[in-house]
Amino acid sequence: MQAASTGAKNRALQIVAAALTTPATVSGILAANAVDVATAVAAGLSPALVDRLKLDEARLAALARAVREIEALPDPVGGIDDLVARPSGIQVGRMRVPLGVVLIVYESRPNVTVDAAALCLKAGNAVVLRGGKEALHSNRALAGVVRAALKESGLPEDAVVFVDDADRELLYGLLKRTAEIDLAIPRGGTALIDAVNEQARVPVIQHYQGICHVYVHAAADLDTAERVIVNAKVSRPGVCNAAECVIVDAAIAPAFLPRLAAALSARGVELRGDERARGLVPSMHAAAPADFDTEFLSLVMAVAVVDDFDAAVTFVDRHGSRHTEAIVTNDHSAAMTFLRRVDASCVLVNASTRFNDGGELGLGAELGISTTKLHAYGPMGLQELTTRKFVVLGHGETRGTPP
Amino acid sequence: MQAASTGAKNRALQIVAAALTTPATVSGILAANAVDVATAVAAGLSPALVDRLKLDEARLAALARAVREIEALPDPVGGIDDLVARPSGIQVGRMRVPLGVVLIVYESRPNVTVDAAALCLKAGNAVVLRGGKEALHSNRALAGVVRAALKESGLPEDAVVFVDDADRELLYGLLKRTAEIDLAIPRGGTALIDAVNEQARVPVIQHYQGICHVYVHAAADLDTAERVIVNAKVSRPGVCNAAECVIVDAAIAPAFLPRLAAALSARGVELRGDERARGLVPSMHAAAPADFDTEFLSLVMAVAVVDDFDAAVTFVDRHGSRHTEAIVTNDHSAAMTFLRRVDASCVLVNASTRFNDGGELGLGAELGISTTKLHAYGPMGLQELTTRKFVVLGHGETRGTPP
Repeated sequence: MQAASTGAKNRALQIVAAALTTPATVSGILAANAVDVATAVAAGLSPALVDRLKLDEARLAALARAVREIEALPDPVGGIDDLVARPSGIQVGRMRVPLGVVLIVYESRPNVTVDAAALCLKAGNAVVLRGGKEALHSNRALAGVVRAALKESGLPEDAVVFVDDADRELLYGLLKRTAEIDLAIPRGGTALIDAVNEQARVPVIQHYQGICHVYVHAAADLDTAERVIVNAKVSRPGVCNAAECVIVDAAIAPAFLPRLAAALSARGVELRGDERARGLVPSMHAAAPADFDTEFLSLVMAVAVVDDFDAAVTFVDRHGSRHTEAIVTNDHSAAMTFLRRVDASCVLVNASTRFNDGGELGLGAELGISTTKLHAYGPMGLQELTTRKFVVLGHGETRGTPP
Repeated sequence: MQAASTGAKNRALQIVAAALTTPATVSGILAANAVDVATAVAAGLSPALVDRLKLDEARLAALARAVREIEALPDPVGGIDDLVARPSGIQVGRMRVPLGVVLIVYESRPNVTVDAAALCLKAGNAVVLRGGKEALHSNRALAGVVRAALKESGLPEDAVVFVDDADRELLYGLLKRTAEIDLAIPRGGTALIDAVNEQARVPVIQHYQGICHVYVHAAADLDTAERVIVNAKVSRPGVCNAAECVIVDAAIAPAFLPRLAAALSARGVELRGDERARGLVPSMHAAAPADFDTEFLSLVMAVAVVDDFDAAVTFVDRHGSRHTEAIVTNDHSAAMTFLRRVDASCVLVNASTRFNDGGELGLGAELGISTTKLHAYGPMGLQELTTRKFVVLGHGETRGTPP
């Protein structure tokens, strides 16, 4: 795969996209999916989980479009950056190369099978897919589509391996294969991520929960603050870059909190405030301490009032999950200090937390948002699925001998 | 530390460098070192190990120079790359920031205490130093010098913590502190690295052994090949970027191997060849299979003859340690294919493997050569001790609303 041409990789992706809208293939995938859905219903899974599992023609067509978008992205592999001549006479550069073999561990959404495989393949990696047992038939059918496409385009079909057994011990064994696997990426709830991190001896990049804040600084424009917070909370409350907590500077809280509460309540958001917030908006629910460490993923939002800028940064340090943090302010110095001081994969000034997304930040498709600082911090696009090695172009140079 | 100014960090490094040549401090360090050396001699450690442990005024002066070199390097923290405007109206960039807390686990050389601390501090990281028990007194004294310098320059002295207890269980506990430690770097033999990797739940970057090859292609210039191999093997045989094995293309082996054997033998190198190599140079020792998977770190070199280019790449895949691999050839296409196909932290054309070094490649001081593909593949300089977060400069933008 490391030496696969861009043309062959793109051809494989075209074949996958075409298959996902070809009636014979679609009906095979939907039949497999129906088995999973029937099993899930019989087992009494919640309607939300059953919905996550369910495929239909429209969802497969959306998946096909996603694959075509990945095909259209530039191939990250093989380019050489920063080629410079050194005093010894050698030229030194850094060539972008695939990571190698990536193990993706995921839960019930079967579209991850195709999404993750397509991104890994485009970056020249081999991928081992280990999905949840609820989606076993669907995942097997989708992985079969990708493997067939690889074969048809002259690439090794084993560049995509589907682990056709959701046994935990088997997974834990894979996570220890340091000689064969270069990276494991768990995608799912915190229990899955914790289990992978505990068991793995291979490197892991975590996509952990987003406990994201918007801090309304004393010098904030209040219209901007309201607009940003409403968007950050309401536009899609169930995703990791939605805001879970507002921090309001004490100096501006009396002017801002009542209007914010009105705006959010009108959109069905339940507010849970600390004592100072409730002093200004008595209709707020009282927040329990745990509310400030919770990823609600719903129309619930915690509210805290803080003394000043330093207290806000301290609050974020203590309660944030290093995912996405925003400040609203017109004070340039406060904005710049917040950018530098706050430790999160994406730090924003006067913009919604919802922008922490591969597409919005300009990376194209993404495999998720890493909260691991090493290698990839933030959305993982194609480039983050590669690494760089040093390359040296010489003319017979030896070390320690004058050129 | 994350917000520490370049000035304060450089001041601390200046104070460290000055202390390492100040008589009162020097005599304190040497007295502590004398305790370690006496204990090592009494315990019957080999003279080579005792020498690694030993400090004197010249070695401390060299350490002071190394610290001044780190001080002179540009501060990697705070710069923003790739600031671009997005269609939504936001500006997106990537700010270089410290990793956080780095745990360095090392063996008997006490200079690592100062080297590693200086690099980590300059990159804005806090560092936890856990050295070997043979060097406990020396390391404690050196860490004390760095801590005093931090305090004197107004930085938190706990940005450098020395683990004053070489107990293994204590180390294993530290390696599981995922909430407090962002990265562990083991520096030492393979047993140490394997133990750290086995125990760690925090991310680990390995600096593993170098089983490095020079491949003499059919189209090699034979003078260049001889010069490169002699340098790669003989200039410093005990380091990780020294070559351990020569692979010679069958087409050129009859012309090249006899002269190579003569050149290396004249410099005291013992050659261990496979059957084909010994067919051409009968005076070579017979290589055992394990010789092709050994980091000799001495004047011993394995020699193999291969059929062609593909066989050479396969040989490197099988026996290399992803550290440093070189080809000697005048065939442009073979050179470019080798660069692309061979998976190692540094791949060279017509140059000695000894160039895989932070100073030679242009990174300045380094913490070692990573053979982990994630985050840093190859020499780890200051930049590799940082990460990048996304920063967004907005004007009140919200997602999903046209700008």
